[in-house]
Amino acid sequence: MTLADRYRAVRQRTEQICSPLQTEDYVVQPIVDVSPPKWHIGHVTWFFETFILKPHFMGYQEYNPDYNYVFNSYYETVGARVIRTDRGNLSRPTVKDVYLYREYVDEAIYNFLCHEPSLEIEELFILGLNHEEQHQELLYYDIKYILGHNPLFPAYDRNYSSPKIEETSGFISMNEGIYEIGHTGEGFNFDNELNRHKVYLNAYQISTSQVTNAEYLEFINNGGYQDFRYWHAEGWDWVKTNKITAPLYWHLIEGEWFIYTLRGLEPLNLNDSVMHISYYEASAYAAWKGMRLPTEFEWEAAATQFTWGKSWEWTESAYLPYPGFSKAPGAIGEYNGKFMVSQQVLRGASEATPPGHSRITYRNFFHPNLRWLFNGIRLAR
Amino acid sequence: MTLADRYRAVRQRTEQICSPLQTEDYVVQPIVDVSPPKWHIGHVTWFFETFILKPHFMGYQEYNPDYNYVFNSYYETVGARVIRTDRGNLSRPTVKDVYLYREYVDEAIYNFLCHEPSLEIEELFILGLNHEEQHQELLYYDIKYILGHNPLFPAYDRNYSSPKIEETSGFISMNEGIYEIGHTGEGFNFDNELNRHKVYLNAYQISTSQVTNAEYLEFINNGGYQDFRYWHAEGWDWVKTNKITAPLYWHLIEGEWFIYTLRGLEPLNLNDSVMHISYYEASAYAAWKGMRLPTEFEWEAAATQFTWGKSWEWTESAYLPYPGFSKAPGAIGEYNGKFMVSQQVLRGASEATPPGHSRITYRNFFHPNLRWLFNGIRLAR
Amino acid sequence: MTLADRYRAVRQRTEQICSPLQTEDYVVQPIVDVSPPKWHIGHVTWFFETFILKPHFMGYQEYNPDYNYVFNSYYETVGARVIRTDRGNLSRPTVKDVYLYREYVDEAIYNFLCHEPSLEIEELFILGLNHEEQHQELLYYDIKYILGHNPLFPAYDRNYSSPKIEETSGFISMNEGIYEIGHTGEGFNFDNELNRHKVYLNAYQISTSQVTNAEYLEFINNGGYQDFRYWHAEGWDWVKTNKITAPLYWHLIEGEWFIYTLRGLEPLNLNDSVMHISYYEASAYAAWKGMRLPTEFEWEAAATQFTWGKSWEWTESAYLPYPGFSKAPGAIGEYNGKFMVSQQVLRGASEATPPGHSRITYRNFFHPNLRWLFNGIRLAR
Amino acid sequence: MTLADRYRAVRQRTEQICSPLQTEDYVVQPIVDVSPPKWHIGHVTWFFETFILKPHFMGYQEYNPDYNYVFNSYYETVGARVIRTDRGNLSRPTVKDVYLYREYVDEAIYNFLCHEPSLEIEELFILGLNHEEQHQELLYYDIKYILGHNPLFPAYDRNYSSPKIEETSGFISMNEGIYEIGHTGEGFNFDNELNRHKVYLNAYQISTSQVTNAEYLEFINNGGYQDFRYWHAEGWDWVKTNKITAPLYWHLIEGEWFIYTLRGLEPLNLNDSVMHISYYEASAYAAWKGMRLPTEFEWEAAATQFTWGKSWEWTESAYLPYPGFSKAPGAIGEYNGKFMVSQQVLRGASEATPPGHSRITYRNFFHPNLRWLFNGIRLAR
Repeated sequence: MTLADRYRAVRQRTEQICSPLQTEDYVVQPIVDVSPPKWHIGHVTWFFETFILKPHFMGYQEYNPDYNYVFNSYYETVGARVIRTDRGNLSRPTVKDVYLYREYVDEAIYNFLCHEPSLEIEELFILGLNHEEQHQELLYYDIKYILGHNPLFPAYDRNYSSPKIEETSGFISMNEGIYEIGHTGEGFNFDNELNRHKVYLNAYQISTSQVTNAEYLEFINNGGYQDFRYWHAEGWDWVKTNKITAPLYWHLIEGEWFIYTLRGLEPLNLNDSVMHISYYEASAYAAWKGMRLPTEFEWEAAATQFTWGKSWEWTESAYLPYPGFSKAPGAIGEYNGKFMVSQQVLRGASEATPPGHSRITYRNFFHPNLRWLFNGIRLAR
Repeated sequence: MTLADRYRAVRQRTEQICSPLQTEDYVVQPIVDVSPPKWHIGHVTWFFETFILKPHFMGYQEYNPDYNYVFNSYYETVGARVIRTDRGNLSRPTVKDVYLYREYVDEAIYNFLCHEPSLEIEELFILGLNHEEQHQELLYYDIKYILGHNPLFPAYDRNYSSPKIEETSGFISMNEGIYEIGHTGEGFNFDNELNRHKVYLNAYQISTSQVTNAEYLEFINNGGYQDFRYWHAEGWDWVKTNKITAPLYWHLIEGEWFIYTLRGLEPLNLNDSVMHISYYEASAYAAWKGMRLPTEFEWEAAATQFTWGKSWEWTESAYLPYPGFSKAPGAIGEYNGKFMVSQQVLRGASEATPPGHSRITYRNFFHPNLRWLFNGIRLAR
Repeated sequence: MTLADRYRAVRQRTEQICSPLQTEDYVVQPIVDVSPPKWHIGHVTWFFETFILKPHFMGYQEYNPDYNYVFNSYYETVGARVIRTDRGNLSRPTVKDVYLYREYVDEAIYNFLCHEPSLEIEELFILGLNHEEQHQELLYYDIKYILGHNPLFPAYDRNYSSPKIEETSGFISMNEGIYEIGHTGEGFNFDNELNRHKVYLNAYQISTSQVTNAEYLEFINNGGYQDFRYWHAEGWDWVKTNKITAPLYWHLIEGEWFIYTLRGLEPLNLNDSVMHISYYEASAYAAWKGMRLPTEFEWEAAATQFTWGKSWEWTESAYLPYPGFSKAPGAIGEYNGKFMVSQQVLRGASEATPPGHSRITYRNFFHPNLRWLFNGIRLAR
Repeated sequence: MTLADRYRAVRQRTEQICSPLQTEDYVVQPIVDVSPPKWHIGHVTWFFETFILKPHFMGYQEYNPDYNYVFNSYYETVGARVIRTDRGNLSRPTVKDVYLYREYVDEAIYNFLCHEPSLEIEELFILGLNHEEQHQELLYYDIKYILGHNPLFPAYDRNYSSPKIEETSGFISMNEGIYEIGHTGEGFNFDNELNRHKVYLNAYQISTSQVTNAEYLEFINNGGYQDFRYWHAEGWDWVKTNKITAPLYWHLIEGEWFIYTLRGLEPLNLNDSVMHISYYEASAYAAWKGMRLPTEFEWEAAATQFTWGKSWEWTESAYLPYPGFSKAPGAIGEYNGKFMVSQQVLRGASEATPPGHSRITYRNFFHPNLRWLFNGIRLAR
């Protein structure tokens, strides 16, 4: 598969994810964590323009200098940017404008790729594709949030179905000892997966399946949200301040639990894995069960022995650098390292993760209060 | 002119105001005071559906019960409503959906009007038309804010021009004595213009023209924004907290003043009347000139003697009930009275005021810090 | 009575008000509107030092230049100041230090008064005494708030008793016509009571007594706090945001109403006048009764015909300048004018008002949400 | 040393720390993280009353049931508590009252200790003493903050001097391999130091001395606070939002650096170790030096090879449970575990740490933005 083919495939997938949207759905930003879909569309394009075309394609004519300001996300190195909270206030550029920008950049990229790029640029390219794949996943999160918080509960796609992933129930026993953690080998990886290094783990057991809605409902019905003993202090504050009583997208309507899915509002399916819970909730659930969440090292050491990929799994590990971690020079170096404080690692993948994007050493990370991502719970003890 | 003809004219004017908009422009809400244009379009329609069709048109089939929730503005009597700050988070109903709703209600209204309505209903009707005209004016404010705060500074209409209103400069002297204030006669009025009553005014002088950009610039250049002596205490806090240094929509670019107008960004025209200033700024300007703003009573008593209508004029009067003021029963009674605290009266009209909507007894009112409305300054002494 | 005698009397009264306090009571600031008593003690002293001694007493040695910063309240003219919200964070100067400062200034003042001051300085002096009397009243408010919001509900003085003021119940009828409003004659007045001017009033009736706790309780028991129809829009928001269900200092304990008074927590006395309600509550109560609050002009025109002085009475008038109002030059000019926006006038006096400080033309003013002042309700119709 | 002797020694040390305070210094709470000293005095007393006397001393008469509410810190198990932000609003109980409470409880404790307590109670006792020692350290932090943020910059003790701790400069090299981490042996430990467990460390070097004011000043003078590349994203936001340009207590006065110490305001001593920096600053400084902070495991593994104890040292480790960590049952179990999210570990001790309270396995923890604690920087690479 040529680089151009890979590029085309990734770019088309982004557009296909957005194809069920109405123009208006591209524009709004109901909370700061959600970005308007048109911003994603523009931002991933801006990435290729800024890091490939402008520095490396001689004679490339920038599409619109103002877009640099509009579509920069957080790269301080490359200049001013629209503050994240303001993205939903911008009606222009229109959705059509953003797609025209996208076409323009795509055309330039195809021209650029007529000549084989250097290895260094090819690496940047692969990073750009992985970056766009990350935004594909975020698009699912954000679209679900935008539609799922609309009082009309519109469906994204009435025929949407989650991929089937079979699990067996039980616990795997792992021996005490030294394990190797982190990326190795040829394929693509993010800088935060390096260096591969040894960790010493005590003996532990880890579940081969995720917690289901039925199991989580038991926690709710047993007063889990009313008993501070299961919660971190800041989790308990969060529960009380935000009056949390159930996972995001759960609605108790006349005594029956409903759930908003990408198909619209539906009765809660008890056999599905629970999703859309914060780290605080995952941890409280585990405490109520008399267990705990695995560390990211325990997860990685055992992951070849169970199926995963239904949804990202909160771990008990904070997001910190591996031994020998070093940032790339320049703007690309802002990619991961600067977030290594106050966040929690998730492992695995979700139904929103693009095919081929996941791997056993992948480190996802979010603040412990966030729930709009596609995540669930795996227990350890 | 029949009621149906009047209805058609008002409704078409709303749509004509929105005709230059892109779909995306209908959706966003950059600050809480601004509503998304599609919300206005739906809300004025909801008003006719809720107060005319549903109670008075036998057999009328409500378009969509959820719209009651989405498009209610503040009428507590008629149920729950989307909180004002959340209006910009709703991508659905789409713009097209809202126009379909509008068509549906229009059709029902025309059918309803085949039979001559009772006097009471005709009055409700006239109120609904005046209500829609008020939102026409707000549409101009909100569209200007949405486009004027976009980093691309898109024009609303490159050929937009303000109506010409000729002023003579000077001051009119008014005698001490009793004046009659408030609405009288046949035409439509809001409840807050009643009762007509006597007020005793001391002798005063009032300017026959509004303050110009040139005059206001002198205030800026003389350090008016840096000298607390001209300001109310809460105005001075507002200036410092928000780092205010000029009217809204003014931009100092490389030493030259520019202004965003509905035509886009332009060099400041010094002969135009100053617009988009808060009550605090109007009052500070007057203090710097050694004068003051007129009271709403002084304004009304003298208004037949000068031209007005360029922009709303802040008065020194707080928005309070006239003697004998009483609220209508039911939801309509929520129209004006419940805002009679902490707001300041403006008199006159603006270029955004629909033709025929203004009159000498009209009482407009806003909080003293607001500037996105079309307003200016007339001095008194 | 010499000026020195008057000075001594006022100064001693301040100290006598504070005499039941513990050192700790002087220090805290539970909300921004409350100032620590030691700040009051220092501030009124600073006023005499800054406006009398430093400019007019040759050779006067400033006590401590840092105190200028600590005890300035809001006079921008005389330099930087501790932000109001920070007053409660200052443990130093200690209470003893502040009283030493007070003694030092008192001594200087008595020396200064050995020579008869000019008329202009005498006026400043009188202003300083009236200023201290205003802070005496605030001391009662603030002490009550500090002790009344302590979980131990300590008494200020177990033997405290309110002055008896006899009222007759009923309504006075006032004729339509011109009335003269504002200060006239020889005695002291604040600038906001000028100029005396004519107002035209419609016929009205005003109650000869204040609303009692029994009457107000009826409003509560009839669901007055749950029915938006009686409330201003911003009042309704205030009720819901702050979960207001009764006047300040009322406590429902096992089904019985208690009230915190300066004597401590007591069963509610139904015959007392209701106190500690916001303008919103006063106005909602009046609406529920089918009446309204008087304007400040109606109040002043009728006030010789009823007894008043139990507590300040909210009026329907916003705090605005009288015709011909002008600010004094310099810092003294900051006294009143700069607050003439977004506040509501109260008339009368309270049991906390120093003897001799009240008069029929006195204009008190506060924001409409405040309740820690000593205020009540008089109805009009 | 008997338990009663140990108790007496710890209790007296608390009172000795407070002996230079004025009554007013005991009362204020300038920021939420700081508690009023009188609250500390009462809270550590409440701890002994609640966990020893009330459950275990037959016939013990509770001093004042209201104190349970006033002096509970965060133990949800034992009932309601004054919200942390409100502690500085309470003038009562007075300082004298709190000391009387303290005397009462002390007396009861001495009586209780006439009979030898069970082993379980002795453990609780030791926990209570360690708890009080932790508050002794916090008292230093809070007193310094209260006095150091007063515009008069009062000294705590003009003769205060820090203990001398000699350091040699250089780096220790540590070998790759397995190290044992966590408490072992007989002495007291907190639950968060268990279980002792193996960790695998890569080879690393760690500095034998802390960063000095001179070295940190170089970072400032080289624009370290203006260059986002050295900062975590949330650290950079913190710098910009709070306009941070130097450590807490540093003041640039007419071009010279001064520092507030417990002796008052002094010229900055360049040879002292830098103190009062956030984790963000520590980490940015390390990045600027091309190094990093040690993990808590690296710190513990190497700590026998350098002197420590000048001030707590931020590590790159988040505060997480050790393998096998389990909470004690009941209120005591709330001690540590519930804070194990979003905080950063510090190791070592400070000049404010009570003698005998520190040990090599001690895990201190704070949020990464906090600087009022006594902390510094040790580099690793």
